[in-house]
Amino acid sequence: MNLIAEIFSQGAEIVTGQTVDSNAAWLSQQLTELGFSLKRHTAVGDDLPDLVDLFGEIARRADCCICTGGLGPTCDDLTAEAVSAASGVPLEFDAAAFAAIQAYYARRQRTMPEANRKQALLPAGALRIDNRFGTAPGFALQFERCWFVFLPGVPFEMKQMFDDWVRADLLQRFALRPDHLVTLRCIGLGESAIQEKLEPLALPPGAVLGFRAAPDEVQVKLLFPAEVPEAERRRVAAEAAARIGDYVFAVDGLPDVQGDLLAVVDAALNAGQYSLAVLETASHGLLAAKCLGRPWLQHAELRLNSAVAGAADAGEIRAEALANDLRAEQQTDFALVQLYAIDSGSFYDKDSGIVLYNALATPQGVVSRRLTAHGAGIHKQNQAALLALDLLRRYFQNSCL
Amino acid sequence: MNLIAEIFSQGAEIVTGQTVDSNAAWLSQQLTELGFSLKRHTAVGDDLPDLVDLFGEIARRADCCICTGGLGPTCDDLTAEAVSAASGVPLEFDAAAFAAIQAYYARRQRTMPEANRKQALLPAGALRIDNRFGTAPGFALQFERCWFVFLPGVPFEMKQMFDDWVRADLLQRFALRPDHLVTLRCIGLGESAIQEKLEPLALPPGAVLGFRAAPDEVQVKLLFPAEVPEAERRRVAAEAAARIGDYVFAVDGLPDVQGDLLAVVDAALNAGQYSLAVLETASHGLLAAKCLGRPWLQHAELRLNSAVAGAADAGEIRAEALANDLRAEQQTDFALVQLYAIDSGSFYDKDSGIVLYNALATPQGVVSRRLTAHGAGIHKQNQAALLALDLLRRYFQNSCL
Repeated sequence: MNLIAEIFSQGAEIVTGQTVDSNAAWLSQQLTELGFSLKRHTAVGDDLPDLVDLFGEIARRADCCICTGGLGPTCDDLTAEAVSAASGVPLEFDAAAFAAIQAYYARRQRTMPEANRKQALLPAGALRIDNRFGTAPGFALQFERCWFVFLPGVPFEMKQMFDDWVRADLLQRFALRPDHLVTLRCIGLGESAIQEKLEPLALPPGAVLGFRAAPDEVQVKLLFPAEVPEAERRRVAAEAAARIGDYVFAVDGLPDVQGDLLAVVDAALNAGQYSLAVLETASHGLLAAKCLGRPWLQHAELRLNSAVAGAADAGEIRAEALANDLRAEQQTDFALVQLYAIDSGSFYDKDSGIVLYNALATPQGVVSRRLTAHGAGIHKQNQAALLALDLLRRYFQNSCL
Repeated sequence: MNLIAEIFSQGAEIVTGQTVDSNAAWLSQQLTELGFSLKRHTAVGDDLPDLVDLFGEIARRADCCICTGGLGPTCDDLTAEAVSAASGVPLEFDAAAFAAIQAYYARRQRTMPEANRKQALLPAGALRIDNRFGTAPGFALQFERCWFVFLPGVPFEMKQMFDDWVRADLLQRFALRPDHLVTLRCIGLGESAIQEKLEPLALPPGAVLGFRAAPDEVQVKLLFPAEVPEAERRRVAAEAAARIGDYVFAVDGLPDVQGDLLAVVDAALNAGQYSLAVLETASHGLLAAKCLGRPWLQHAELRLNSAVAGAADAGEIRAEALANDLRAEQQTDFALVQLYAIDSGSFYDKDSGIVLYNALATPQGVVSRRLTAHGAGIHKQNQAALLALDLLRRYFQNSCL
């Protein structure tokens, strides 16, 4: 018998459609991976009677509910009050929560507005969940059948608190038999092309193959039932990776997490204590922006509105020459240069493609790669940044040129 | 008395988090603009008893519900069956719906799979809603208190069917009086500080004040009942804007939409056919990246790891000198320079603040502004990019230096 979980989102901005509720999807993925059976998402606005009714309904039908939003300092943040009204548990002033809110303002050398005092009122007996990145503490409590967890609606804070505390607490609190999820993370090949390559893949009984096209990558998800042993999971994942080829840049869940493309490149550059200089064009600053906080990026240059003309060979040769020059000039271990040409139409036309000429100067010589990017301008920009980083990833993972 | 509307989404991919439910947000915006009071979003998977329960609940508490998903040809598409079970209305074969499905395949010179026949089974007496772009017809029917509208989950088909028929039908069917939403968009001041400034604001009866902290701005939402005349809405919005001060960069809904900070800056630079050069440090490429596709950005430079030391005055003087130099060198109308100093600790430490020294060289001389940014590294980076743009916005909106 599976444990039933629900997701609940509070906020007028969600129920009136000002904000797309991406928190609900993220939390559902986490709970599904933990082994819960997800049954419902519900969102309501800032109306106290609606909130009270809803908490009462969920308390009777679910084993666990993760709730986001409504923990802020303003008059339309009603979550704690509604939980108290629904459950009959009074609100109590939590001195530790209040001290954390005061410390948040003190660190920023700002005076705490009086409104924030309200965020320290939690239902009596609730577990406080500290928020390292904002003023709103979360909390958790049992109400009838259901273990309720309340987190802020700001996605960054919510995810940190789930990762810091909630996931581990749920694993302790519930007898979960999580399925095993192995994710192959791919860049440079589309979802349907990857699906075709995987059609001959044989899966163990009960295992499920899924796909997810994220903005930065395509993920192939292999979900194995709890009883499939690790050796078998490794064998199937290796076969899938071999069929897809070197578009796979990371494999998560065996059991390590390798992370996204930047994490893979970061690990390789840090391991060798290497330095990098970049010259970007089509990515328009986004390549450098993505590398915030990476000490290996020692120099970044931007050339705006600089599409190259002429034959493809000329584009690659020019990129290679610039990469060699940049490496010599900046005295870095690596230099990455991105040039591009417009296929037809304009960069910002979603029906026009661009051709990217990426070149990487290394201690062993220069390599280059010609690629294409499509879609809206911001999509091409993002692809250009990622595909430049991917040339570094390929250099390190394929070990030789 | 407002009419109550809900949004319901069916599909395992939504409830397990594989897909973010953007349909719910889009439909909520449409219904809010029509004058419905949106009360709930609910999503459930492909479970018949869950669906039957849910339709029964909604039928008793809402005046209108738009439902998406579950209209496909496969065994997990259970919407019509669940509606029939909940309402007691039998399914009937709809010959016109079937002819439309057959025509869809005929136009594509493909054979209709037998499974698609099921899509022509609609609750007896329901209104059929034709789908010009896919095989799944929609339908609508009254069940207890609620007018239910069923549309496919494919966003493109759903939106076309709403625009083609549903909106006009709702306007005829219900006596709607749309509310008026005015949004004040602010940057540089936090949500609770803004709330404090607005505490003395007197609102007309029935008007509601709300707040939304988005990553790039804080929004103050003034929701006025339909009967409040435009002159009164303008007066209240102007008073709120005056209380907040020049942190307000745009006012949407009077009735024009001015857009986000970049849109406001973009409009001002385009109106004067001005050109801009930027030198960015703390924003690490993100300022240029945000300006993708804006022809006024003619030059962008990056200085990585370049925190300045020394007294605040020195930082401002240095930024102003660099801005004048950059403007002269690049021969642009404006030059924007961003320098920063680290308060204590490191840029990437969420508890350390940075001081930003932004300077703008203009045809009338140079201005500068000292600001602070806090939070995680990527939050400081984003604030640094936005606050630099905000100096341009302030130049244009405040007209004089």
